[in-house]
Amino acid sequence: MQHRDPLLDALSEQARTAPESGIVEIFNYGRERPGLIPLWAGEGDRPTPKFICDAAARSLANGETFYTWQRGIPELRSALAEYHGRQFGRDFLSDRFFVTGSGMQAIQLAVAAVSAPGDEIIVPTPAWPNISAALTVRGAKPVAVPMRFGNSGWQLDIDQVFAATTDATRAIFINSPSNPTGWTATRDELAAILAFARQKGLWVITDEVYNRFYYDDVRAPSFYDVMEENDRLIFTNTFSKNWAMTGWRIGWISAPPILGQAIENLIQYSTSGVAAFMQRAAVVALNEGEEFVESQIEQARQGRAILGDALSRSPRVRFTPPAGAFYLFFSIDAEPGTQRHPDTRKLGYRLVDEAGIGIAPGTAFGPAGEDFIRICFARKADDMHLVAERLTAWLDSAALA
Amino acid sequence: MQHRDPLLDALSEQARTAPESGIVEIFNYGRERPGLIPLWAGEGDRPTPKFICDAAARSLANGETFYTWQRGIPELRSALAEYHGRQFGRDFLSDRFFVTGSGMQAIQLAVAAVSAPGDEIIVPTPAWPNISAALTVRGAKPVAVPMRFGNSGWQLDIDQVFAATTDATRAIFINSPSNPTGWTATRDELAAILAFARQKGLWVITDEVYNRFYYDDVRAPSFYDVMEENDRLIFTNTFSKNWAMTGWRIGWISAPPILGQAIENLIQYSTSGVAAFMQRAAVVALNEGEEFVESQIEQARQGRAILGDALSRSPRVRFTPPAGAFYLFFSIDAEPGTQRHPDTRKLGYRLVDEAGIGIAPGTAFGPAGEDFIRICFARKADDMHLVAERLTAWLDSAALA
Repeated sequence: MQHRDPLLDALSEQARTAPESGIVEIFNYGRERPGLIPLWAGEGDRPTPKFICDAAARSLANGETFYTWQRGIPELRSALAEYHGRQFGRDFLSDRFFVTGSGMQAIQLAVAAVSAPGDEIIVPTPAWPNISAALTVRGAKPVAVPMRFGNSGWQLDIDQVFAATTDATRAIFINSPSNPTGWTATRDELAAILAFARQKGLWVITDEVYNRFYYDDVRAPSFYDVMEENDRLIFTNTFSKNWAMTGWRIGWISAPPILGQAIENLIQYSTSGVAAFMQRAAVVALNEGEEFVESQIEQARQGRAILGDALSRSPRVRFTPPAGAFYLFFSIDAEPGTQRHPDTRKLGYRLVDEAGIGIAPGTAFGPAGEDFIRICFARKADDMHLVAERLTAWLDSAALA
Repeated sequence: MQHRDPLLDALSEQARTAPESGIVEIFNYGRERPGLIPLWAGEGDRPTPKFICDAAARSLANGETFYTWQRGIPELRSALAEYHGRQFGRDFLSDRFFVTGSGMQAIQLAVAAVSAPGDEIIVPTPAWPNISAALTVRGAKPVAVPMRFGNSGWQLDIDQVFAATTDATRAIFINSPSNPTGWTATRDELAAILAFARQKGLWVITDEVYNRFYYDDVRAPSFYDVMEENDRLIFTNTFSKNWAMTGWRIGWISAPPILGQAIENLIQYSTSGVAAFMQRAAVVALNEGEEFVESQIEQARQGRAILGDALSRSPRVRFTPPAGAFYLFFSIDAEPGTQRHPDTRKLGYRLVDEAGIGIAPGTAFGPAGEDFIRICFARKADDMHLVAERLTAWLDSAALA
């Protein structure tokens, strides 16, 4: 930036250099455009179900507006333990669950727990940009390990992950199923990563937010399938996706219970806990939300099929159907068959203006993703048909060379 | 700690050494004790007023459960500008206000904005422990400047603040009126601190949360009275105290608008914003809450009088009535007149068990505060009479030597 203001120069290096979110940039550009279908964020078109909202309203009416437990109300920690029990078929201690003010904050706290300024964390890319940015703000260093896109989809070369570790490495960050690519680690890959981490004394921070948005089975493989209780393994998660609670900002950490006081301290000195009335709603989501979660997954499955069918008919588009998560991540050839790609950030602006669609440009997702576009398909079928129509019409006619 | 677990040893130094909150420690010990009157936290006995809760419930019912503006919804930023206009008698740009997930998070973000790991920030003490702890988690260094307690109350020697700055100093943290002491800077002191900061190129982070809880005038002196628009000055604030919204976790930053993108990024990579339905409630608090805030201040004034009268009758107790905030911060002589003081952390546990009162021990508040006890008096008169009775009875009989 030229003619920098002295106030900006006086900021900390981390605050000055934290990147603007490449997703939010387009979001802010197009958010009030009439008729636009917003597919830039990882959120659907459904508001939070009434039975969940009502629980928050009831709690408010009951006067639950005071300071509460830093680690989360006991009822929610128990509900999380039971929910995980149902999902993973074994018992969980409620002591390993910590309520956070969003999945994002779960990541921020996990990063602060295991890395000091100057430390390195391995992050396979393309990845949700907030992971690396949270490291930058911390003063830690994200080390990107680019995945490869080929005919069988996105692949992570695990040996490359291992080779990227140095004496400064403190953790490996694994997001599976992956936002934005849909790449999903096999159980064997998870076991291999964990074995390597054990051997080297590294932490694994894992984001399995999309575990249930998986299209080959009832859920994706999980570190829960291969871990032991005291592995150096921190799970970050959110209520946003399964229960359509993106705007609530509530998530959780799952970690060895012995870290309890350290995690409580990190919560205390960042946001000091989550509103009890929100937590009451989260309890209801876990205990009574199963039917709704299933309908969310079914809707994503349909959106995936509609958009996948449409895009597969365009000679300009390259992608493979994602194994998990709820994004299509595809590249566009400037001329059919050329493999030259237009600047996806500029495409983001153009798709707002010319096609009435809000997308997230691949430039936001780090090495190996630059030439791709992310579209969220977790939306009602009518909208996805309209998106398919608008996008294919635009692809047929737009000058991109 | 002996026999440290290898998992704890594997944490980052900052996570490992962040202190347990000395306030929460006693809180957790006594929180479910029947009949106990809790005065350990900075919160009263009133739940959030119904008209504020109803605004959140309405917003939820209207489906405002999606991602929203990272800097805060425009309506709340405008309402904050207008509220500050009414309080400080001049115009404010809404662009200088940023909604945060608590006053605590406002502090965390301000600290991240201005300091890198290794930097120093001056913190006059006794101080709310979360200020220094937030610095520790950041990897920055709090430099305590102890205030002095004498016959005219707590005094901050401003020359000592200036003398404590080094080449590593990035900011001075000023909390006035002060939690826990009630010390309130004069307008001249604020002007002198700001002039010094300007001259040295330092930031001032200021917490004026208790600005309206001031007992000599309608409000305390403020940096808003002496600042210019582009001073390196970041205000951190909260809805917690004025509007009885401690449990909500919503606050705000006021800073030069040119910092907007940097602050947005810090919000994006920590909690990614505050629920829109909470922000709707905050708008209503600002616009329709004036009568309630005045009743809060009046209640605190009564609590201060009741508790002050009672304690002034005990020969063991030393304090001066606080100019601002809503705490009595007093020491207890082990034997009347001796100036030897019992361990206040142990007193915290004893007062739970022996007097049915929850207090915050001075050991939590850093240098110069160790021998004192903090009691929150922002509570209904009936409770404060009961506290006065229990406390004086206990003081008359307890063996402390």
